[in-house]
Formats: sequence, C-alpha cells, structure tokens
Amino acid sequence: MKLASLKQGRDGRLIVVSQDLSRAIAADGIAPTLQAALDTWESSAPRLERLYREVTDGAPIGSFSFRPGDCASPLPRAYQWADGSAYVTHVELVRKARGAKMPETFWTDPLMYQGGSDSFIGPQDDILAADEAWGIDMEGEVAAITGDVPMGSTPTQARVHVRLLMLVNDVSLRNLIPGELEKGFGFFQSKPATAFSPVAVTPDELGSHWKDGKVHLPLLIDLNGHRFGSPNAGVDMTFSFHDLIAHVAKTRELEAGSIIGSGTVSNSDRSSGSACVAERRMLETIEKGKPETPFLRFGDRVRIEMKLPDGQSIFGAIDQKVTRYEGPK
Amino acid sequence: MKLASLKQGRDGRLIVVSQDLSRAIAADGIAPTLQAALDTWESSAPRLERLYREVTDGAPIGSFSFRPGDCASPLPRAYQWADGSAYVTHVELVRKARGAKMPETFWTDPLMYQGGSDSFIGPQDDILAADEAWGIDMEGEVAAITGDVPMGSTPTQARVHVRLLMLVNDVSLRNLIPGELEKGFGFFQSKPATAFSPVAVTPDELGSHWKDGKVHLPLLIDLNGHRFGSPNAGVDMTFSFHDLIAHVAKTRELEAGSIIGSGTVSNSDRSSGSACVAERRMLETIEKGKPETPFLRFGDRVRIEMKLPDGQSIFGAIDQKVTRYEGPK
Repeated sequence: MKLASLKQGRDGRLIVVSQDLSRAIAADGIAPTLQAALDTWESSAPRLERLYREVTDGAPIGSFSFRPGDCASPLPRAYQWADGSAYVTHVELVRKARGAKMPETFWTDPLMYQGGSDSFIGPQDDILAADEAWGIDMEGEVAAITGDVPMGSTPTQARVHVRLLMLVNDVSLRNLIPGELEKGFGFFQSKPATAFSPVAVTPDELGSHWKDGKVHLPLLIDLNGHRFGSPNAGVDMTFSFHDLIAHVAKTRELEAGSIIGSGTVSNSDRSSGSACVAERRMLETIEKGKPETPFLRFGDRVRIEMKLPDGQSIFGAIDQKVTRYEGPK
Repeated sequence: MKLASLKQGRDGRLIVVSQDLSRAIAADGIAPTLQAALDTWESSAPRLERLYREVTDGAPIGSFSFRPGDCASPLPRAYQWADGSAYVTHVELVRKARGAKMPETFWTDPLMYQGGSDSFIGPQDDILAADEAWGIDMEGEVAAITGDVPMGSTPTQARVHVRLLMLVNDVSLRNLIPGELEKGFGFFQSKPATAFSPVAVTPDELGSHWKDGKVHLPLLIDLNGHRFGSPNAGVDMTFSFHDLIAHVAKTRELEAGSIIGSGTVSNSDRSSGSACVAERRMLETIEKGKPETPFLRFGDRVRIEMKLPDGQSIFGAIDQKVTRYEGPK
C-alpha cells in the first residue's frame, strides 16, 4: 500500500494513496497520522490495506485527487533518522579524490550517522539555505521506516521490521563538512533539513524489485530538467537495509517510525551518472585534476523519482527549488 | 513549575509535580503528554502553572504521592537529542590524556553530536548492556528542552526558547568510541539509550542559579553510594545553552521538544571530582601513567541529582543499575 501525509499541523494528516498516485483518501478513522499508524501497526495496517484496495480499485466517497505538492514528508517529524553510507564504492571515491586510503573495515562495518529528525521539509518544498558558499548539494537515497526493533537484533531478525520504503533528498552543505568532520563528532550544521518522497510504500509494492533488503531499481535524479544520474539502488549496495538496521540496533532498541537511510546511491559503473553533485565533482577531480560542475545555486531545481519498468512512479517525485533563506522573522 | 511523565504507552502520561516533589497530579485535561504540552506551550503553560500552584500549595482532589520510580524520562521519546561538549576543559583533558593537542577553535565553536532520541530509558530503569568489555560509563549532564527555534537564530534570540531544564545520564560505551570516531561520522553504537531526570522544570525554579543560559549549581554524582563528583554546572561551561541552541539552529529550524545537552559537566578545579569515570581515568593516566578506576560493571549503581542550597532536590534523582542485556526475546 501507499501512504502519505497531507500538510496539517505538526504531524500531517495520514492519507492512503492509490497505486497509480491519482487518488487519495484520508485515513482518519484508522490513524490520524503516519506515526500513529506505525505505533499501532498490527491493528492499523490491515485496515489501511483495505482502504488502499478501495482507493486503488475505484473512487470511494471522500476520495480526492492526489497532489504531491500538498504533502509533507510522510513523517513530517520523526523520532529517528539514521543514515548509512551503504554504497561503499562511493565512500572509496570520496577518499580517493582527497588522496586518502579507505580502511578495509569499511567493507564489513557500516558507516552511519545520526541525522536531525525533528523537522523535515516537504517533498516539494524549497531547500532553504542562507549562503550559496556553503556548497549546497542534493543526495539521492532510498530509506526504510522500521517498526519496533529489539536491541541486539541480527540482520536476519531485522527483516520483519521493515514497514515502509521511501526516497530521500539528504540535503548537504559540502563546504561545511570538512571542518565539521575534522572536529570528530560527525555532521551537524552540514546536514540541514532532509526531504522525503511524497509517498511511502510497503515493500510488496516493489514486487521482485525488493529483494534481500535492497531496492533493485534505478534512482532517477534530474537537475534543472536534465538527467543527472540514474544509478541502480540495488547495485553496489554493500550493506542491505537489514544490515543497517542491525547496526543501529546493536546497543539500543529502535522505536517504531525510525527512518534508516541507504546513503547516496552510487554505482561503480559510472555511465549511470551520480545521485549528488559532489560525486560528479570527485570524478572530474580524478579525471581532469579539478572539479567543473558547481554545487547548487539559488533557483536550481532538483527532482528525485523512481519508476517501475512500466513507467509508473512508485513514490511520487521529490521536486525542490534551492532558495535563499532570509533569516528569522 | 515541575513536570514529569508517568510510564504509560509510548509517550507517558503528563503529570505536574509539587515543588518539594512529594505530590503530583495528572495534567490530562490540559495536555496528555509532555510533547503535546510543548507543541501547544503558549496555551498549555499557563494552565499547567495554575495546576502546579495547586499541587504545591495543597493536595487537590486527584493528586497522589509522587514516585520517581514510576516515571519515564520526561520525554520518553523525542524528535531531537543534540548533545554538546560545552565544558571545553574536559575536552582538552581528553586530548591531553591521549597526547593530542586540541584545536584553538574548540574554544569558540561548540562541539556537538546528534544523539538517538527514539527510545530513552527511564530515570530509574536499568542500564542494559550486552558486554562489560564495551567500557560502560555514565556522563552527568544538564539539558534544556526548547520550543520552536527559527533557523539562523542568534544566541540572544535563542534565550526565549528554553522551555524546561533537566538532568541527563548520557550513557556511553567508552571502548567502542575510538573505533567509531575513527570512521569519521561521529558516535552511534557507542551511545546507547540516554536517561533523563524524573522531573523537568521551568528555569524559574532555579531562581538566581539559572543565569546567562547556565545552571549555577553542583551536579551530584554518586557511584555505589559514594560521592564520585560534584562539579558545578555553571563553572567552566564555555558555551551556554543559548550558544548551543544557536549552533544547532544555524542551518535548520528546531522543532518544539528538542533536547539540547551540555555535555559532561567538568570543572578545572579537580577537587570537585568528575561526572564520568572516563575523566577520572584520564586524570589517573596523566598523574600515574595509567588508569586505575574501572568502568562500570554489572550491578553498579549510578545516582545523579542536583539540589538547591537548602537541600531540596530540584529534578529528582536519576538512579540506575547497570545490568546485563540477555538479547532479544
């Protein structure tokens, strides 16, 4: 099934969206918000599934046209956003571009960071930044929303806890990253508010393209209307979502509604392009001695989407304009 | 006023606690949970204040004896937990113990990390860890809960957004930290679930001891019934809570209920002892060539409290036993 949150209050209003993303219906009687649905998944999921069948098969009373621009991120705020860096060839490239060697353990021990989750931006909201010089960048990713995961769960035990999947634009401020990572405590100011796709879907919506905890489909990244990359999210993903969830759960439990990100999708076959500007710049640096593609500028437009082979958009599109933030009112 | 959350469901049940922590009353008619109260603070705070006066001045119908052991952390789960390292002399000591020099910028640019906030443990719940060899440690801290903070707020603008204060035990797994920080993305598995004091209080409860965004009182740390340290939280705090909030808000807004931590309280006057075992071990290393105090062992008991000069406990006590985690059921 497909779920989304209309912009309303702090947590949105849960709606069930038809498979072709044309229609939607409020899930008020079942769960007012997606978080509430996740908190009570055992009882809410079957009822949401029934509503999904109705809105996919026809136009039940109360249903309306689905408009992604009316949506907040599926979880407008969440209790956890933990982002991985599961495409290790990308990490290797980052290191190579700055002349550093990647530790061998990076192939066996996932790299993850804890992200800010209190206030996500909507899938078609502006990316607000005060300064272009911060090196504004998109990062196209896939993410899983979990149920409750007990501490110490193995990857195999983690399998059953994947509730929903969605796409991510993990906006990054590239020029703030080196100074921040040098301090040793990870990202903070270099990771402003993240955006997610309008729609979150249960893994069965992907059919055979969801396999072994990975999404085996190309992630389509457009910049200003031109294809920037289409790396396959199932290729070169060293750690599956099951691995990432187990990594997060090693020393503490995860509560329902935790969002686990894949990290920037990246294929070692470079013909599929990149899911972030930084990667293209690194390739340029390695090939030509210096980067040529600029980071994002005010007015630039980023679109991130994923389609089934028949052309049907699965999650709706993240479609955002980079805009100057004028400061607190 | 003083607020707490009885253990109930995922978000607890909001109660208002009397000033002397002897009695409490449910705030059901005002806000079911502390998060709900923070979401609607403008309207809920005055009503909670009135209830606080009633339960402090007498024993209104429906009030009951307050028992910290019945409490979850004031926010049993939160949308943000951002922890600082505001006592820079402590950071300097960490570096000195491993023979490294601290960058000068650490005196002007706060060091902060994003912590996991989806599932805190209660103030008197066991600290569960699977392995003593992980180097289990307490970290006594002070924390502020904020209201909504606009992106780009200055420290001066941040002042009005401090809603509540509480104490923290930022449990850390010391022997997992070096390997994790070496990876470059900050803490993850080395920071298991955090605990907070039973009660969160508005800053006015501290009277003149809340000044310039700092809590000017000793933080009392006991290990197995013996005083381990009593550093003053207002001394050597290089960055105030206003500074820390502004740091977090530089590139994104903060949503109501964000928890901002001070980092381990530490005084350069060593006679007041330490708020974590690691600091004592570092002092031993510097003085004697090697650490002598072991990290926490199963069965050890940690107590963290803060009192007014008249002996009145302000927040109630964090009082936790370290216990072996037997794995997922």
